[in-house]
Amino acid sequence: MINYPNRKQNQNIVTKIKSHSYRGANLEDDLNQTNQYYLDLNKANIHKKPTPIMVVKVDYPSRNKAKIVEAYYKVPSTTDYNGVYRSKAIDFEAKETNSQTALPLKNIHPHQLEHMRNVEYHGGISFIIIRFVYYNETYLLYFKDLDLFMKSNDRKSVPYAWIKENAYLIPFSLTPPIHYLKVLDETLFKGEFK
Amino acid sequence: MINYPNRKQNQNIVTKIKSHSYRGANLEDDLNQTNQYYLDLNKANIHKKPTPIMVVKVDYPSRNKAKIVEAYYKVPSTTDYNGVYRSKAIDFEAKETNSQTALPLKNIHPHQLEHMRNVEYHGGISFIIIRFVYYNETYLLYFKDLDLFMKSNDRKSVPYAWIKENAYLIPFSLTPPIHYLKVLDETLFKGEFK
Repeated sequence: MINYPNRKQNQNIVTKIKSHSYRGANLEDDLNQTNQYYLDLNKANIHKKPTPIMVVKVDYPSRNKAKIVEAYYKVPSTTDYNGVYRSKAIDFEAKETNSQTALPLKNIHPHQLEHMRNVEYHGGISFIIIRFVYYNETYLLYFKDLDLFMKSNDRKSVPYAWIKENAYLIPFSLTPPIHYLKVLDETLFKGEFK
Repeated sequence: MINYPNRKQNQNIVTKIKSHSYRGANLEDDLNQTNQYYLDLNKANIHKKPTPIMVVKVDYPSRNKAKIVEAYYKVPSTTDYNGVYRSKAIDFEAKETNSQTALPLKNIHPHQLEHMRNVEYHGGISFIIIRFVYYNETYLLYFKDLDLFMKSNDRKSVPYAWIKENAYLIPFSLTPPIHYLKVLDETLFKGEFK
């Protein structure tokens, strides 16, 4: 019985690891870990942008220390992630959905779509990383393909079946959890850097 | 006398325009205006990243409305601006100084320097936009040149005279206020897109 507290703690860890291997962490954590891995291994320099916040009031409880006491979240005008890989400007958004049938398009703001279109226009590479939590599957969908989909119909969501066919499944590994640059290597750079 | 309030207002406007032409707005405003100009004219897609803030406590005074009531500024781990221009990943930091003699290097965090070095390694274009408020001059200094400077000595600041010789003066105009991409066109792309 003396060991009980420790045993309980260990069990919790095991449960966590197990549940991770089944479900994965949340998409943002997985992407942060992946980007850190890319940075550490000198593969790419890709970062999540800070969440845009409108600061209204700041207090200075002590010299040199600013405490924000009133602020609000702003609607992002660009995507969440960007950086550089193999001399290319990379720009993407990440979306998680619990739906078993489709990715609702209302999850992506119109100015984010406009932003991705514009990045492509200037020669950057833009895509969306989509996780279907129910299936524990993560896809890379090039913005160009999504754009064609949106122009060919006026559905309010992108069907799971369509994504399965037109996006690329990112295989899950531990290091890194979401090796999305591998998809770029195989589909965009087509092995030219091997 | 009836016109007095209007006249005063007009005088204010004139003073503002005049003082703007002499001193310029602050560097961040000028850059935001310049980047918006580039975006509107389809020249480039470059944005200021949101300021990184660590949110500690959020209240919900009403449904769907989140009010941040405790938060702190974080030290930025990357640069302030990035995006894409002529298929190239652009990444830069902006610094204003009141010094007449040098840009203090303590203004730039070591991990920001590390970040810029890394962006260059991956094929992006990294630089610093420096404004000497006293002279009302704004320069573009390529990170590569700054890096050579830092490696060749251990000064704690970059002398104004050295910047005059090794950086590029960005001519002031009204639209856009800081046409820094012109410097890239003339020095990096060397007219290849004319």
